[in-house]
Amino acid sequence: MSTQSFKQAPHKLLVIPGPIEVADDVLFANAHPAMSHVSPDFIPVFGDCIRMLREVLFAPNAQPVLTAGSGTLGWDHVAANVLQPGEDALVLNSGYFGDSFADCLETYGAKVDQIKAPIGSKPSLDEVEAALTKKKYKVLTFTHVDTSTGVLSDAKGLGELVKRVSPETILVLDGVCSVGSEEIRMDEWGIDVVLTATQKGLGCPPGLMVLAASKKAIAAFEKRTVPPNSYFASWSRWLPVMKAYEAGTGAYFATPPTNLIYALHASLTTITKGSPSLEERFQQHVATSDRVKDFVSQLGLQQLAADGKKDGAHGMTAVRYPQGVKATDLLPKLVAKNIVVAAGLHKQVKDEYFRIGHMGVTVVDKQRGDIDYLLNSIKEVLAEAGYKP
Amino acid sequence: MSTQSFKQAPHKLLVIPGPIEVADDVLFANAHPAMSHVSPDFIPVFGDCIRMLREVLFAPNAQPVLTAGSGTLGWDHVAANVLQPGEDALVLNSGYFGDSFADCLETYGAKVDQIKAPIGSKPSLDEVEAALTKKKYKVLTFTHVDTSTGVLSDAKGLGELVKRVSPETILVLDGVCSVGSEEIRMDEWGIDVVLTATQKGLGCPPGLMVLAASKKAIAAFEKRTVPPNSYFASWSRWLPVMKAYEAGTGAYFATPPTNLIYALHASLTTITKGSPSLEERFQQHVATSDRVKDFVSQLGLQQLAADGKKDGAHGMTAVRYPQGVKATDLLPKLVAKNIVVAAGLHKQVKDEYFRIGHMGVTVVDKQRGDIDYLLNSIKEVLAEAGYKP
Repeated sequence: MSTQSFKQAPHKLLVIPGPIEVADDVLFANAHPAMSHVSPDFIPVFGDCIRMLREVLFAPNAQPVLTAGSGTLGWDHVAANVLQPGEDALVLNSGYFGDSFADCLETYGAKVDQIKAPIGSKPSLDEVEAALTKKKYKVLTFTHVDTSTGVLSDAKGLGELVKRVSPETILVLDGVCSVGSEEIRMDEWGIDVVLTATQKGLGCPPGLMVLAASKKAIAAFEKRTVPPNSYFASWSRWLPVMKAYEAGTGAYFATPPTNLIYALHASLTTITKGSPSLEERFQQHVATSDRVKDFVSQLGLQQLAADGKKDGAHGMTAVRYPQGVKATDLLPKLVAKNIVVAAGLHKQVKDEYFRIGHMGVTVVDKQRGDIDYLLNSIKEVLAEAGYKP
Repeated sequence: MSTQSFKQAPHKLLVIPGPIEVADDVLFANAHPAMSHVSPDFIPVFGDCIRMLREVLFAPNAQPVLTAGSGTLGWDHVAANVLQPGEDALVLNSGYFGDSFADCLETYGAKVDQIKAPIGSKPSLDEVEAALTKKKYKVLTFTHVDTSTGVLSDAKGLGELVKRVSPETILVLDGVCSVGSEEIRMDEWGIDVVLTATQKGLGCPPGLMVLAASKKAIAAFEKRTVPPNSYFASWSRWLPVMKAYEAGTGAYFATPPTNLIYALHASLTTITKGSPSLEERFQQHVATSDRVKDFVSQLGLQQLAADGKKDGAHGMTAVRYPQGVKATDLLPKLVAKNIVVAAGLHKQVKDEYFRIGHMGVTVVDKQRGDIDYLLNSIKEVLAEAGYKP
């Protein structure tokens, strides 16, 4: 069977903020015959993934780390390798995922301060500057796109701020809902760690943790005075393995998810070498996001993000139900049209809004018509629920 | 596209001790269209995997835990949930993986003693009894099949011993290279934790950590006085999620590898409900193992396991090269015949032997003819290398 002859089964259109729709060739790669993780046929595939990931992040000097896991495991990597117990971390909280990242850092012994923004917004650069001036933080983390609120953080602005007021601080971007759908210029902006997973903008099934660390982050790791306090997430274990795969020799610590590496290879090949180009891909995500957000506004609906077109992510939109419309009026009616959007996630307001994902093939493969069908269906379902704009 | 019409691409026969050959229907399930991890279509699939895993382990009362990861991550689960820092663990070492498990336990603060057996053998029950009598251990771990040596531990005997001399001790079976290919009667034998991964006897691609904990192990976890010292491997996080999936409601901590859950569902359905039956499956692994080991003896070759047919695993065989034959005389010549066996792994002797995997479809699907082709090819290649039995 060849890639061209594989067509995935008919299914409901998945437009949640991840997992996202996966292209046929990527799913076919995920059905690759069993392969030894140290086979000379497999090693260069892994090496290519490492190299292509650097391209996606504009990070020629970063060290990628790819292991079985999820985005959550990326937090453990930061907590157990970059920080030592007792060291200070500042977590910028723009939703559900800030709280969880803080929990993770504390589990490994970090002392965590948080700047919590009201739901739908993010800490301002002024607030962050004040905090960085008051105390020296080893690590500053932020959620690039908080999947619970759809708020987009100012990665470039935070990079400039850290360079200016606290250049020793390691800047960590949680990119679970942003890598592949938001521009991230890791080197230029001064981002030290990007962590993500495969099931969002990278367009693959879930199951791989994806991380990249700058030279500064690696140097902080190398200066540790105590070993990493995780085993499965230890860079002492993984960095030699990543270097060996990239060098074409391979090495063993724990078995990599070989099929997902093939899937990632297929997807990264499209992202870095296919059409649209990487820059055009980001522009298309912006254009589609603008279209969705304009549609939402024209319908008279509110977004969870305070200023949706300015502060909102480009790969998802969180929309408040209008007066008189409940989750049960909308979500199951869309399912009846073979469309799956996501319910609210932020604990305090989860019944008040729903979330739309617009990433990957749904955005760049116009022939699918996903966005047209999605927006028309939302309009119809709201009308059926008696809502008038 | 339907399951029946999917045929995996032609490829080299993979007969290493994992990853192993994967059936077409399992690979097709791994190419499932994207699916929300909290979809009502997906939740019962996850729930079924939990239920079928109990059948495979003869453990009606155990609590399975399934997360993205590898077998190695199962060690972190034991280290961070069952043990508290400063508590004592005894590691039975029958090869490479005992050393690594001990490293992992120490990373999380356990005090570890080891009983190290010479290469090719395992600690005797008498040695273990002496150690358990001398000191009270919170945890006793053993590698059921050490993938580096092919030595099979006496799981049943160890279970009886612990019940008799140290009934409070939590008995942990590292089943990475045994679950699905070796009989494990978790409840009856008194095994408290079984940990494994999907790419060996369970017949799936790699990427899922699979674990089951007895009521005694869960009780030990619940009696902790300090929280688990891992985040991604924390049972505080995962147990409610597993219970929710089994109850049909679903819950979120970290995104599960949805496609691998579909693949595992396909494979566990074959293992628990297909032909051969589960009991016959284990018998077929014994019969095939005997055939391979007899073949090795008839050729005048030695196994790494001291007494191969008695102490050897039933899903793999580690074979010493005969005098005058090197790895380069055998491994690449088998590759030329489209067969991949594994090189040695145990550091001290890795150039002196090779490893054959005989698990899953290679064993139970006789029509494939994998074993015939493998054994005939080994014979031919050795003859070409000038070896005379």
